[in-house]
Amino acid sequence: MTTGTPGAAARRAPAPPDPSPRLTESAAAGRGPEPVKETLRWLAARRAAHTFEVERVPFAQLHGWSFRADTGDLGHASGRFFTVQGHRVHSDYGPIPRWEQPIINQPEVGVLGFLVKEIDGVVQCLMQAKMEPGNANVVQLSPTVQATRSNYSRVHGGAAVRYLEYFTDPGRSTVLVDVLQSEQGSWFLGKRNRNIVVEVQGDVEVHEDYRWMPVGTVLELLHSDNAVNMDARTVLSCMPLARPTTPPGGGEATHPRAALRRSVTDFEYALHPMRELLHWFTDRTARHDLRTERVPLAGIEGWRRTPEAISHAQGRYFSVIGARVRAGSREVREWTQPLLAPHGLGLAALVVKRVHGVAHLLLHARPEAGHLHGVELAPTVQCTPDNYRGLPAGDRPRFLEHIEAVPADRVRFDAVQSEEGGRFHRAECRYMIVEAGDEVPLKVPEGYRWLAAHQVTRLLEHSHYLNVQARTLVACLHSLW
Amino acid sequence: MTTGTPGAAARRAPAPPDPSPRLTESAAAGRGPEPVKETLRWLAARRAAHTFEVERVPFAQLHGWSFRADTGDLGHASGRFFTVQGHRVHSDYGPIPRWEQPIINQPEVGVLGFLVKEIDGVVQCLMQAKMEPGNANVVQLSPTVQATRSNYSRVHGGAAVRYLEYFTDPGRSTVLVDVLQSEQGSWFLGKRNRNIVVEVQGDVEVHEDYRWMPVGTVLELLHSDNAVNMDARTVLSCMPLARPTTPPGGGEATHPRAALRRSVTDFEYALHPMRELLHWFTDRTARHDLRTERVPLAGIEGWRRTPEAISHAQGRYFSVIGARVRAGSREVREWTQPLLAPHGLGLAALVVKRVHGVAHLLLHARPEAGHLHGVELAPTVQCTPDNYRGLPAGDRPRFLEHIEAVPADRVRFDAVQSEEGGRFHRAECRYMIVEAGDEVPLKVPEGYRWLAAHQVTRLLEHSHYLNVQARTLVACLHSLW
Repeated sequence: MTTGTPGAAARRAPAPPDPSPRLTESAAAGRGPEPVKETLRWLAARRAAHTFEVERVPFAQLHGWSFRADTGDLGHASGRFFTVQGHRVHSDYGPIPRWEQPIINQPEVGVLGFLVKEIDGVVQCLMQAKMEPGNANVVQLSPTVQATRSNYSRVHGGAAVRYLEYFTDPGRSTVLVDVLQSEQGSWFLGKRNRNIVVEVQGDVEVHEDYRWMPVGTVLELLHSDNAVNMDARTVLSCMPLARPTTPPGGGEATHPRAALRRSVTDFEYALHPMRELLHWFTDRTARHDLRTERVPLAGIEGWRRTPEAISHAQGRYFSVIGARVRAGSREVREWTQPLLAPHGLGLAALVVKRVHGVAHLLLHARPEAGHLHGVELAPTVQCTPDNYRGLPAGDRPRFLEHIEAVPADRVRFDAVQSEEGGRFHRAECRYMIVEAGDEVPLKVPEGYRWLAAHQVTRLLEHSHYLNVQARTLVACLHSLW
Repeated sequence: MTTGTPGAAARRAPAPPDPSPRLTESAAAGRGPEPVKETLRWLAARRAAHTFEVERVPFAQLHGWSFRADTGDLGHASGRFFTVQGHRVHSDYGPIPRWEQPIINQPEVGVLGFLVKEIDGVVQCLMQAKMEPGNANVVQLSPTVQATRSNYSRVHGGAAVRYLEYFTDPGRSTVLVDVLQSEQGSWFLGKRNRNIVVEVQGDVEVHEDYRWMPVGTVLELLHSDNAVNMDARTVLSCMPLARPTTPPGGGEATHPRAALRRSVTDFEYALHPMRELLHWFTDRTARHDLRTERVPLAGIEGWRRTPEAISHAQGRYFSVIGARVRAGSREVREWTQPLLAPHGLGLAALVVKRVHGVAHLLLHARPEAGHLHGVELAPTVQCTPDNYRGLPAGDRPRFLEHIEAVPADRVRFDAVQSEEGGRFHRAECRYMIVEAGDEVPLKVPEGYRWLAAHQVTRLLEHSHYLNVQARTLVACLHSLW
């Protein structure tokens, strides 16, 4: 055993290779309208090459799914996949101290994996044109592997998951990113997915539903509505893209978007030190009470079940429905399943501001009843605006008015994206990034804080700091490069 | 709004003050046998100054506590404090695919707070001589504030919690550390406490059960059995003590303990880069299945209830018992409560090794059924050795044999500590740090990894990486300074 001093030998030990510079540089390649158009044409061709048919069916026509006699929970005969169960929430965060709702319980950890490879000096991702029943346009760009344990342990007797071995067999690849992250905390009970990026060196056989494309092209595609699916967006957000190898150059920016995108990668200044932000995050989590308990789905307060749907009595929030899928490109050719169908177009808006030239994101420490820790960092505004039409300003989400009134020249990003089409039916959300002027001060209400972009990147190395909507917006922010 | 370049202005922005150097330097003060003896004398005097009486009572004599008619869960009439409920675990980590057990459900986030202040150039902590009914010696050294929400919202009508305002009122102090951490994952369901250290400048009135002492003295006291309570140990572990202001000096160490303690603070070299460690941690969490569900406590498999205790049929693990407390120094003068009484002395042993002169800790990614994420990093060995007496080596915990056979000159730390005396009855554990020779290789089984001490410090800035036993051992490692 070495008993020597912590001296020269240690200093000479080779530093591990850092993937960030290559990723960051590659994020600039493959941009522009042409690669985007070409990829969208390819997606359309894949969509046309398969026959997909998705129709709503009454619960009685779901195969293998049924309501349990004792609880009324909706589950699969195998005990796998997921269960829709009743969820009672006690909370002193907001005006409603207690409510009940259906929630999806899917305890399995899924794999969302990007296989990447350096091709022609650029890091490229093997993206999949993947069918998901809940998407309006059915096929979207998804990670190389997007699989639940039920998928890859082949509970439903389907085909093996392509490329899975690169993510599960040590030695097949080099792991660049691997972190567990949450999904929608209002709809999922403690759901976690593994966001993983692995790099290969050798040849990879490319199936016709897959294609290599530069990270930059995938980011650029975020500006198109419903092209990049939720699972791809969350993995993109966890890539360390906001770490330049060299300090950003000086020189006055000529275009506001150019100035903003450069400021995203500046990593020296931050309005609040990390220690202060972690204290604030802990305080928001610990100061309030958010307790949940399982209750039978049958007869939960405020909801009713018909043969076709479980819906809220006032028609709000979402319904649980049944769907039959006939598909040619998925692991099995026909199946039925429940889907959660949200009511109304969502809005997830991020206010950003340059402080000392460095991009800061205004994030909200938001309690959601399905989150493991209770609170995660959410966009500045996250809501379904329809639910608040006609209400006085004090009863509407903070900053919603600001977003609705923002002048067009302050909007840096604006596109509609789909949430997970394997669980949600037509769940669409408008994602916006707006740059704040002086009307949004640096001092913000207690549940909100300005975080520098590089601080957000650091937090994304760990689980459960940013919620899935905020992660999509981080990916969109990188698309402004 | 600033629209300028991310240039000189940002670079000139003042860096936030970093508490680490002052903490690290202070950790060296107040060491040695004299301050320790003096503090132990003070603890003994506080113990003598109060009358404490703790006796076991049958469940029927617990006031306000009863078994629910429908589930048999043991709870308080107010619905607060905690509940002992039934817990079913499905796991493919080990040889037992399914079991049931009682578990403590206490959804409130507690506050474990150190008030610190620079006195005579040394950072000192305001420590409390606190009575806890489960401790054999009743009074131990505890954080300034150790309170559940029930305590400080005064559910039981007791006195206000002293010094709480420094931790809850912004502006009364500067926050140095604030992070949520777990408790025993085998006994608690998702329990979290806020580990918080705040610094004050002005005068603080010191009550007779409290005393200022240097961080170094508290660390040194860890070498005494049952002196520093669990809550104090976990807060100590979250202090950024392993970050020297200057690189550690060279020069051959003359004593093994001196060499080890210096190597704890070296922060340049690590056997595995952090990215690789986070991948490993994610993989250990995601690769296996660990699902739990609530079941009625009445009639759980393998356990039986008598008027005096709920115990395992084979007498293993732990019992749930009742206790009556008469006390003069606690918020209320008499109360009854259930306690969890573990069977047998626990062992938590950490193998450390200098690699290129830098201290590395051999940690185990250990699934525990009550952890929010399933897996946290545990000591090299964590078990109750009595449960494995006489079994063949293959059926005993890995590395247990190594610890039992370790020569005395490799033992760097060895003391018995109590676990949380407010919930556990005589829960004692032997904590050991042993320095490995060549017989423990750098390549270890898949569930284990060597982490550099500075990497552990970084992980402790975040929730739920290290379990409470590992955190105690990190505090003990710092005591070797």
